[in-house]
Amino acid sequence: MTETQVGIIGAGPAGLLLSYLLHREGIDAVVLETRSREYVEKRVRAGVCEQPTVELLTEIGVGDRLAEEGMPHHGLSLRFDGEDHRIALTELTGRSITVYGQQEIVKDLIAAHVEKGLPLEFEVSDVELRDVDTDPRVSYTDANGNARQLRCAVIAGCDGFHGVSRPAIPAQHVRRFDHEYPFAWLGVLARTPPSHEELIYTHHERGFALHSMRSPEITRLYLQVPPTEHIEQWSDDRIWSELEQRLVTKTGFDLKEGPVLEKSITPMRSFVVEPMQYGKLFLAGDAAHIVPPTGAKGMNLAVADVRNLARAFVALLREGNPEQAASYSDRCLRRVWRAEHFSWYMTSMLHRDPGADEFQHRLQLSQLRYTATSKAAATSLAENYVGLPFD
Amino acid sequence: MTETQVGIIGAGPAGLLLSYLLHREGIDAVVLETRSREYVEKRVRAGVCEQPTVELLTEIGVGDRLAEEGMPHHGLSLRFDGEDHRIALTELTGRSITVYGQQEIVKDLIAAHVEKGLPLEFEVSDVELRDVDTDPRVSYTDANGNARQLRCAVIAGCDGFHGVSRPAIPAQHVRRFDHEYPFAWLGVLARTPPSHEELIYTHHERGFALHSMRSPEITRLYLQVPPTEHIEQWSDDRIWSELEQRLVTKTGFDLKEGPVLEKSITPMRSFVVEPMQYGKLFLAGDAAHIVPPTGAKGMNLAVADVRNLARAFVALLREGNPEQAASYSDRCLRRVWRAEHFSWYMTSMLHRDPGADEFQHRLQLSQLRYTATSKAAATSLAENYVGLPFD
Repeated sequence: MTETQVGIIGAGPAGLLLSYLLHREGIDAVVLETRSREYVEKRVRAGVCEQPTVELLTEIGVGDRLAEEGMPHHGLSLRFDGEDHRIALTELTGRSITVYGQQEIVKDLIAAHVEKGLPLEFEVSDVELRDVDTDPRVSYTDANGNARQLRCAVIAGCDGFHGVSRPAIPAQHVRRFDHEYPFAWLGVLARTPPSHEELIYTHHERGFALHSMRSPEITRLYLQVPPTEHIEQWSDDRIWSELEQRLVTKTGFDLKEGPVLEKSITPMRSFVVEPMQYGKLFLAGDAAHIVPPTGAKGMNLAVADVRNLARAFVALLREGNPEQAASYSDRCLRRVWRAEHFSWYMTSMLHRDPGADEFQHRLQLSQLRYTATSKAAATSLAENYVGLPFD
Repeated sequence: MTETQVGIIGAGPAGLLLSYLLHREGIDAVVLETRSREYVEKRVRAGVCEQPTVELLTEIGVGDRLAEEGMPHHGLSLRFDGEDHRIALTELTGRSITVYGQQEIVKDLIAAHVEKGLPLEFEVSDVELRDVDTDPRVSYTDANGNARQLRCAVIAGCDGFHGVSRPAIPAQHVRRFDHEYPFAWLGVLARTPPSHEELIYTHHERGFALHSMRSPEITRLYLQVPPTEHIEQWSDDRIWSELEQRLVTKTGFDLKEGPVLEKSITPMRSFVVEPMQYGKLFLAGDAAHIVPPTGAKGMNLAVADVRNLARAFVALLREGNPEQAASYSDRCLRRVWRAEHFSWYMTSMLHRDPGADEFQHRLQLSQLRYTATSKAAATSLAENYVGLPFD
């Protein structure tokens, strides 16, 4: 049996950032991850960092590579009816986003842990959370096959939607909110320079499409597909042809093709669990909530959660003040529901819902036109997109 | 057989205003109405005039009583979770609304017709539109029982959703967009001073409620009820008690009760027909589109339609230029769909949808909170509410 102050389950952005924030404040934490370091460093996920996220990473000293390689964006395109409308994010809000892959942030945080020798174990297995309401412990098998037990003052469940943390809360103590969307995203990573310097969110009769990027050499593209679709049905040729059709404008659009490095289909869902805490177990990030990717909010919400959680743990463990820990869930959930609503709004405005009637489709087109032409509506989209202030 | 340039079916705000606008430009028009003058002058309908509506009525000289008796409003309340949030319409948009009953505008327009001796026939019957694509005529029986026929260059169908004009267009030439909402409004007119100087749009667990007014002595109140409800189920006591429960805030709310002058239940629907023209028949107002009342857009849309239509008819009949008549439908429909979307947005944000799950209800609460606290979101609501500029 070893001891630590905070047991952190999961070495995604939430778990790693929490660990790093805590160690900066002199709080001990141990991060346990079932996957290998290589796996989590290569896992392709989100790529849009809100300004508050960038500011936090910079402030704590893990933003050097982000500052160098991240691509600041000051606008995005709404494309529909074959026309392009720029939402001038920075002009409208004074803030911006930075395109920098989530796995790059994970790499930076792992490197920072390694450099400072902070406890971080990969490839653990059989993780179980015990007595989370009284005397929390984590039992697991380490990478060398040894059975281990970790006693903690508190546990942070940062192990995502499919992790073991959330199920450790007895069902009668939580309320689940679930919403499935009638479409999925086919995501493509291609070795080709972006076809446009900014993100393009496209509503098309054939479905939603998104042009994004990961670096000056790597383009990230998405297509709305039915949730029942299999990736085998999508040859590279079919993908490029479909992207062409959806992204083209009345004045043309030069979509730069290139080798497809990776492609996969992800269903879209919204999910929230309330509260995000039970006894001495605190959930953060995808373990507590899922947003559809259209609003680019998933990782940013995780960052906001652990920022709150680090402060709550510092108050609790250093000063013996339980107030922030007690209000952690409520404070997070306000931002969570804002992000859920924004993600739903972006999703429903931009996708073709196979169950929608023509009345609803006309409303959608009117909403797009309004958003593209009203400063107030564009500002509303923009302020959510760049990230509302943390507090 | 008599002749006129424009045959106008219906003496609601659309038909009367169109007639008045045309006569000002020297175009002959005849208005035919199946109801009595007394009936249309007493028909209780909308009460919120957008600023563009007020400006137009003032500009053409029928705004004297409106200026005297109309109540300018510079804000409205969004009430939810027992709290009141003011949307400062004028501060946010520089514009305002004026509370003045639709039937008062109808009275003013009828008085103006009578004063100038403009052709306006009430209590006609058997109205039929003939050969609207070639040689348009209106056959009808006048108030004295004489069969009449009116030959026109063009016909304006301003006779509402249930009128004869829209059905005169062959079904294959139009497309209908329909949406039914799973609730209705119970509307009450009460002899009691308003309980608050501004409108209060309330979202409550028990359903939507709206506090409005018609004059310093007359309050107008609405309750969301199931669409299957009968007015007999709603005693005055039950109505006041339900209003109390929905309108109360954490700091209380002094709802002023008084004798109920009128009460009725109206289903809520959205409806649009495209195009709004066929041959020489042009539809305006409710004959072409219905909005749920939550956005207060019905009468204002009718005013915008006939403003376009008057200009189109003047160009066509005085200058022989058919361009504006040909583009009439397209020009109107952009505003129509904006109003449809805004009305849907207000309706879905404020009502309790019996078919919605708890996830959707949480989104609704987040949207309300956001609208009440974000300047951009509040401005977006406000600019639609006070009325986007005509052109």
